[in-house]
Amino acid sequence: MTDVRRIVIIGGSAAGAKAAARARRIDEEYEILILQKDENLSMASCAYPFYAEGMIPDRNMLFSSAMGVIRNPDFFLTNKNIEVKTLTQVTSINPEAHTVTAEDLRTGRKEEIDYYRLIIATGADPVMPEIPGMGLEGITAFHTVKDADFLKSVCEKKEVEKAVILGGGPVGLEVCEMLLKAGIDATVVESAPHIMNYLDEEMSMLAEKHIRARGVRIITGSGITEFTGKDGKLTGAKLADGTVLSCGLAVIAAGVKPNAELAKEAGLATGIYGGILVNQFMQTSDMHIYAAGDCVESTNYVSGANVYAPLGDLANIQGRTAGENAACGNKAMFTGTAQASICRFFDFSIGFCGLSEKKALADEWETVSSISAGTDKPFFMGGKLIITKLIMERISDRIIGAQCLGYGDVSRQISILATAEKGGLSVTDLGSADLPYSPAVSPAVDLSVLAAHVLHNQSSGLGKFISPLKLVEKMENDEKMFLLDVRTPDEFKRGNLGHGSVNIPLNELRERLTDIPLGQKTPIIVICALGARAWEAARLLKNKGWKNVHVLEGGITVWPLPLEK
Amino acid sequence: MTDVRRIVIIGGSAAGAKAAARARRIDEEYEILILQKDENLSMASCAYPFYAEGMIPDRNMLFSSAMGVIRNPDFFLTNKNIEVKTLTQVTSINPEAHTVTAEDLRTGRKEEIDYYRLIIATGADPVMPEIPGMGLEGITAFHTVKDADFLKSVCEKKEVEKAVILGGGPVGLEVCEMLLKAGIDATVVESAPHIMNYLDEEMSMLAEKHIRARGVRIITGSGITEFTGKDGKLTGAKLADGTVLSCGLAVIAAGVKPNAELAKEAGLATGIYGGILVNQFMQTSDMHIYAAGDCVESTNYVSGANVYAPLGDLANIQGRTAGENAACGNKAMFTGTAQASICRFFDFSIGFCGLSEKKALADEWETVSSISAGTDKPFFMGGKLIITKLIMERISDRIIGAQCLGYGDVSRQISILATAEKGGLSVTDLGSADLPYSPAVSPAVDLSVLAAHVLHNQSSGLGKFISPLKLVEKMENDEKMFLLDVRTPDEFKRGNLGHGSVNIPLNELRERLTDIPLGQKTPIIVICALGARAWEAARLLKNKGWKNVHVLEGGITVWPLPLEK
Repeated sequence: MTDVRRIVIIGGSAAGAKAAARARRIDEEYEILILQKDENLSMASCAYPFYAEGMIPDRNMLFSSAMGVIRNPDFFLTNKNIEVKTLTQVTSINPEAHTVTAEDLRTGRKEEIDYYRLIIATGADPVMPEIPGMGLEGITAFHTVKDADFLKSVCEKKEVEKAVILGGGPVGLEVCEMLLKAGIDATVVESAPHIMNYLDEEMSMLAEKHIRARGVRIITGSGITEFTGKDGKLTGAKLADGTVLSCGLAVIAAGVKPNAELAKEAGLATGIYGGILVNQFMQTSDMHIYAAGDCVESTNYVSGANVYAPLGDLANIQGRTAGENAACGNKAMFTGTAQASICRFFDFSIGFCGLSEKKALADEWETVSSISAGTDKPFFMGGKLIITKLIMERISDRIIGAQCLGYGDVSRQISILATAEKGGLSVTDLGSADLPYSPAVSPAVDLSVLAAHVLHNQSSGLGKFISPLKLVEKMENDEKMFLLDVRTPDEFKRGNLGHGSVNIPLNELRERLTDIPLGQKTPIIVICALGARAWEAARLLKNKGWKNVHVLEGGITVWPLPLEK
Repeated sequence: MTDVRRIVIIGGSAAGAKAAARARRIDEEYEILILQKDENLSMASCAYPFYAEGMIPDRNMLFSSAMGVIRNPDFFLTNKNIEVKTLTQVTSINPEAHTVTAEDLRTGRKEEIDYYRLIIATGADPVMPEIPGMGLEGITAFHTVKDADFLKSVCEKKEVEKAVILGGGPVGLEVCEMLLKAGIDATVVESAPHIMNYLDEEMSMLAEKHIRARGVRIITGSGITEFTGKDGKLTGAKLADGTVLSCGLAVIAAGVKPNAELAKEAGLATGIYGGILVNQFMQTSDMHIYAAGDCVESTNYVSGANVYAPLGDLANIQGRTAGENAACGNKAMFTGTAQASICRFFDFSIGFCGLSEKKALADEWETVSSISAGTDKPFFMGGKLIITKLIMERISDRIIGAQCLGYGDVSRQISILATAEKGGLSVTDLGSADLPYSPAVSPAVDLSVLAAHVLHNQSSGLGKFISPLKLVEKMENDEKMFLLDVRTPDEFKRGNLGHGSVNIPLNELRERLTDIPLGQKTPIIVICALGARAWEAARLLKNKGWKNVHVLEGGITVWPLPLEK
């Protein structure tokens, strides 16, 4: 034990730098010392893709304050009275002695440093799968600014013609966009059945459909078994089926894992995802040691379960919490994550918050969900498509998950839905939420409110809905169904689901009810473009005595397979 | 009393049409009849400004479904089995007999119509002040599609050179933009001290400052006392001080009032704003009569008080609620309004939700508020300024109001904050909210989270903040203060608050503490660009023993007056 008033922080990127700054604002008297392995500090790592593709004019901006001042050790010292040692790696923590051992990477010299409180913010490492040939030149992760420098130079030099990206998650897509913009023929390889594997299957499939529609090559359900090369340089990636994709560049975007080795070696508790376990005060199993950012596990506030959520916004909030509590005792609380995220692929956005339905079902929640589609502004204002999946817990009516895809303002929608989850809103609450409306920014009925209406129609028993994938399954099983397409004849001709689809436009339906088979044995599946007209038709049929009527959720717009013409 | 199964709806715009459609989806057997005074139905009235300025190519789009089909009586009949009588005005309601009297405006013929349930959706009328000369040609409200047609033709003909707009609220600004785009020299006249009078004063002033900076002429604190004319045509608008503004067009944008005459005459209860009183089921004081939309008063769900909130999104939600309950009894609930709104003036947006601080204080709430400023994305991604005022109730820590202004994505911010109010989030909850982050759509610390941090720093007693207006007041009173500007010398030279401001950059402050006056008598006001550096400086001073230290909220960026150079 020591009586030095020093807060030591291992790591100086988002969480570490934020923790140091908050600790300093709480108390001027502590010595505050950041030990940073890298040469840079406060890196805006989520912006690396934008830097690598050339959108950010000056590399220094990645390390600068909002005022454009580089956050280097001198900045921290003069502005914040925080000492920083860069290129300094902590090699061990000794919780009993309240010390860390730090090595100067330039000189190899080691020193013992006392701490009163320690904050671990060691971040994450990229997952690098063990594939033969991983050592070949031309294979890189996309994690550090050096990786970004490398990819930026690849994009600029235009020597590489073909590239393979291992991983179809958000980072994989960002890298793919960057390479395509540089004129490099990029192929995404994803070992899961679909890209964006954290989404529910039908939403992954839709994302895949829209991204493929741009001409992007995506190979799913198949991993890379070997990288092949010549003279030490990458020439190809071999898939499980033996196909070799010729490529001069391979980017590994297979996710990240917590960098918690130091903590583990010091005997701190870690969780099932390998992250450091912390309480709501960001305190580890040693009360004098806090941890924050990509090296910790967090509580998902929807489920209450521990998750691994390496997200930039959380690193900041957690760092701030840890810094405050390290300086003045446990006052600040981090109340958990919704694992809220958004990513863009060109003009297509993908947002997520809460639980996926597959995760909820695997954990034995009883769920009801709906898919709905609409435009983010009125059609006459040039509104763009957004598809929303909304998930509720049956017993509580509470919203537990949401996924949004499309060309419209997904940021607004996922922000609303994440906040709704934070507030524990029920589907009924969301269905009468008052949101800021102007035709310049939204439809009169916001798409999150619409999604709640559709979900409530289903959960209250007013109607039955069928998801696109369930319908595909029924089609594949050749189940007897009556597919009733209530769009106009023109819309029908432009593309329909086939399988004997019958076209009776909604405005003729009341006159042509005798064309609809009676009896409960044959399910009637009602289909339109977005779901609204099919819902009206289904209610009409139900009110007229038909029992086995189902609306295709979201309509033709969310159909993941090709249409018939 | 009657046993006819007929739901009669007075009014066929947003609320009425939505009520009819929902009632039909609930039950196919009712007769459903809409009586509509106008010739049009389902008008997208919030889009009239966009139509008048020529952004919407086809007038019919204002009355069309998302599929582009005009919602005329035939559409309602064939698609929804709803009968509509347009150009039909209800002249009285007889609640005891369960009848309404309706007059065909083409023939003058009247008929009595029985109802089982009645839904009143008579909307609002524009407030037309009693000013001499109001009958002159060239003076118009901006409320109906005919008003929009007229203004569209004015914009196209380009005969009018100068126009006056009476009213500096959202509609006044929309009209102003429309006229300016048509090359018409428009002046906004607002009788209140500032435009956007529903905002708190400092936010109104900021909106005014930014809008004036575009060269728009805004006259505040002065009403129009007379319209002058020649040969029956408008030539000028006289102000209280005698000035005459020459103009060939005057647009009255002085707000709207509920059209509740029919309801009042039928003995239904109305409220202090003149709107029909309804319960959460949208049921009036007569249990067989529902009402929805711009003719009713609503409950503000933050305060619990009755308010008048004529908003397009509410008309839809309330109409849906009324329609469902009229058809099947009181199942659906409308849970109230946050009076959430957003409006745009060119690239400048103004958003609001909850209570203003002035309203809360007038109602004797104990509040704490903060103003903060930042960019909606990282600076290196071209982020644009947003200024946020956040208001909390002191005793509960609950967020009760928010106002956002700026050139950035205000829609996302006000959507988050309205949803936070709906969920009853505390400032602490919001301060650790997990929102979807990507440098493409937001800063790592979302501006709503930042606003919560700033507010919590204040409410928890960690620091003292002073609003720009309070500081202006102290300056005007020549109070003794030490204005400490901690920006760089370059920033300081480009513009500062004067009044003896002393420039000590943050990175020199620790070395120059002796330059700061000691003692508690002289308040120290710390100033920077956005508030962050001033906050660090204030904490340093407080930690070093200074007691009377205040941070200028939001920094120079939110200063409503001209700067000194």
